[in-house]
Amino acid sequence: MTLREEWVFKRKDDKVRTQIYYARQGIVTGEMQWVAKHESLEPEVVRSEVARGRMVIPANIAHLNLEPVAIGIASRCKINANIGNSSVTSDISKELEKLYVAVEFGADTVMDLSTGSELDETRKAIIDASRVPIGTVPIYQALELAGGNPADLTSEIMFGVIESQARQGVDYMTIHAGVLIEHLPFVQGRLTGIVSRGGAILAQWCLKHNQQNFLYTQFDRLLDICRHYDVTISLGDGMRPGCLADASDKAQFAELETLGELTEKAWSRDVQVMVEGPGHVPMDQIPMNVEKQQEICHEAPFYVLGPLVTDCAPGYDHITSAIGAAIAGQHGAAMLCYVTPREHLGLPNLDDVKRGVIAYKIAAHAADVARHRIGARDRDDEISRARFAFDWERQFALSMDPQHARKLREERLTGDCVRETDYCAMCGPKFCSMKLSQDLTRPEKFKQTAKRRK
Amino acid sequence: MTLREEWVFKRKDDKVRTQIYYARQGIVTGEMQWVAKHESLEPEVVRSEVARGRMVIPANIAHLNLEPVAIGIASRCKINANIGNSSVTSDISKELEKLYVAVEFGADTVMDLSTGSELDETRKAIIDASRVPIGTVPIYQALELAGGNPADLTSEIMFGVIESQARQGVDYMTIHAGVLIEHLPFVQGRLTGIVSRGGAILAQWCLKHNQQNFLYTQFDRLLDICRHYDVTISLGDGMRPGCLADASDKAQFAELETLGELTEKAWSRDVQVMVEGPGHVPMDQIPMNVEKQQEICHEAPFYVLGPLVTDCAPGYDHITSAIGAAIAGQHGAAMLCYVTPREHLGLPNLDDVKRGVIAYKIAAHAADVARHRIGARDRDDEISRARFAFDWERQFALSMDPQHARKLREERLTGDCVRETDYCAMCGPKFCSMKLSQDLTRPEKFKQTAKRRK
Repeated sequence: MTLREEWVFKRKDDKVRTQIYYARQGIVTGEMQWVAKHESLEPEVVRSEVARGRMVIPANIAHLNLEPVAIGIASRCKINANIGNSSVTSDISKELEKLYVAVEFGADTVMDLSTGSELDETRKAIIDASRVPIGTVPIYQALELAGGNPADLTSEIMFGVIESQARQGVDYMTIHAGVLIEHLPFVQGRLTGIVSRGGAILAQWCLKHNQQNFLYTQFDRLLDICRHYDVTISLGDGMRPGCLADASDKAQFAELETLGELTEKAWSRDVQVMVEGPGHVPMDQIPMNVEKQQEICHEAPFYVLGPLVTDCAPGYDHITSAIGAAIAGQHGAAMLCYVTPREHLGLPNLDDVKRGVIAYKIAAHAADVARHRIGARDRDDEISRARFAFDWERQFALSMDPQHARKLREERLTGDCVRETDYCAMCGPKFCSMKLSQDLTRPEKFKQTAKRRK
Repeated sequence: MTLREEWVFKRKDDKVRTQIYYARQGIVTGEMQWVAKHESLEPEVVRSEVARGRMVIPANIAHLNLEPVAIGIASRCKINANIGNSSVTSDISKELEKLYVAVEFGADTVMDLSTGSELDETRKAIIDASRVPIGTVPIYQALELAGGNPADLTSEIMFGVIESQARQGVDYMTIHAGVLIEHLPFVQGRLTGIVSRGGAILAQWCLKHNQQNFLYTQFDRLLDICRHYDVTISLGDGMRPGCLADASDKAQFAELETLGELTEKAWSRDVQVMVEGPGHVPMDQIPMNVEKQQEICHEAPFYVLGPLVTDCAPGYDHITSAIGAAIAGQHGAAMLCYVTPREHLGLPNLDDVKRGVIAYKIAAHAADVARHRIGARDRDDEISRARFAFDWERQFALSMDPQHARKLREERLTGDCVRETDYCAMCGPKFCSMKLSQDLTRPEKFKQTAKRRK
């Protein structure tokens, strides 16, 4: 029996089994204890943060091999990696490989965004193989079931999919319940319209039927399902900006107000909730975007996609967005959804997944350091000590991608240059500043100098 | 005759020929006009910024194929790429290739940091081939000439090298005149001592001779040479932090005070000057670092190396540092010195140079957008329009690395998927949000909706 199985089993007769419900009852669950230990936080801090809604622990009661993860401002900044096939390309084993690579390099959660065939099989394989929380966007499967035309989508299909995915063990779901028909005119004049797939589908549905978004009008149905399985709702930002020009506009912030309202609704039914954010945002608007979300959504965890800080570097959007993500994390975003180098160009392959995860691990770690989170800088200090001591093996061991660092070093050590050296191939021995300054860090040296100078 | 040759020829009989001298006389030089045009600034703005010392135009009177570049807070954020061989590896043609690649992808200046053999030949080849300003760190050659032992360095050797490099046409030189003997004890207790090569060499020299840094005591000799050739001084930060733990410490800021003093000295002799900055700095300390430099150095242009925002991602330091560089640029740094993926591991190869330049082009551009520099966002808006219109060719043309973007897209378009599509291989046609939301950006659509809803 896994630890998680034990925890779930112990609570099997409880009527409500969400983490926020227990937290509000004053109960510290096994999941809370686990994350407290891994975050170097007091269990009571975790409990009160979860109770307050400022932290979520996405942990579907059916995901039994899960190692719980805390997402919130009190805990370390998390990163999510999106995987999943599309109608264009599809292969379950390849998606599992992506899952393993993503988790190996530090993804804290993984979203299965598959839109092709074999959706249930792919998702089941991913959940079964994953110790990290799994998220989905159920509207993708719902649209497949509706035959691909947004107008043919119904609430029956949609809630059927949500229920069945919840039963499978999905830990959190992106739900675009904040896309309201009255907000759609705000999209006029945008350079890139709606760039959220879920948002675009629901906007089409609203327009075709001239009706309000059924995920908004029937939000209680969603809450019933999420309350039952402890699925954390990730309120999707269907109106997020898809370019710098559209950032922080009326459409985006009108939706945010709705997400704030839905956050409170979810909390009132003891359902865990986080809120998704942009997208493409100029650097100078990022802190304001985080503050606004925190205020309007009552400090529910903010889960941002990037944001990309420029639109003009396709092929390098893991970098354009890691810059924005680091700043968002520094200012209070709780989880950063990665963007890979393949963004805007195609679905990521295995190498893209790795590159995306590492760029985001860097962003999240830099944010933790900047927020002075407990122990965040320890690894930096350790690797710096190893660097100054020319302990290459320890440097590699402490680096985010040991194999890659070793490869880059060994490639450049050629010819008469030995492999085990007390300098790197960058400057050579004569110009090694660290070698030259080793003396200077020793106090004895300066006592003498001081004496001589008197 | 090149334009630059004309400008220089016209002034051949003037006694002082530095840009700052002319600016202070109220003269708008050809160089100032050129940069004004390329920066969309009024020539008078350029003149007054140069006169004030807040902008430099590194333009040695002997660099005749130069296309001048403005570095300062009023102009676009610039990036520098370091090239150069080391005693470990050396090949002039390879360094020229690096120069071409760096400039092709957007390096605004290039520094030749060679430390191996054939230093004069390499530098001459680089200057002759370069339309962008070339910078050097003369102490590297001086140390070679001194036989490699810092203690054997003399001011004769050093100023001899500076003079001969100036005569060759070097546009700016890093001079570590701010490393003072009384600051060396502050290095005690640092995790990584001194990581600047020039700083470490001079620290050794000071300790061995128990004397003050001769570049500081004989700063006027330097000014004579720089005044004659219009070499811009780049005041090196020999005490910059080499890890997060050492950032913003006493050693760093003591040197900065000295650099502020030397800035005024340079200005008093009509010599252009910029100031170099760190290094490794946690994100939350970057704005303070920029503000401090601006204040202490009287707003002389700040030229930062990164900074890296974490120490633990060797192999990815173009990313760790692009995050810091973007933030520094946003807060007022005038030029960002790139860091390549090979940093801490070896000398960059051609591919590393390209990756470093692109990461920094992204950082500098994001900073320009965030500072609302004139026209900075135009390219983003253009590419976003092309993206929404599925105009792939235009998207590629507007991207920072067209070939790479095209390659990533074409790799993922396989099988039954045609090449010219109105959707990308990321989501497929059914889930293309932009396709789904094309309607929504048209105003007619909403007039109807509004009518129906009444």
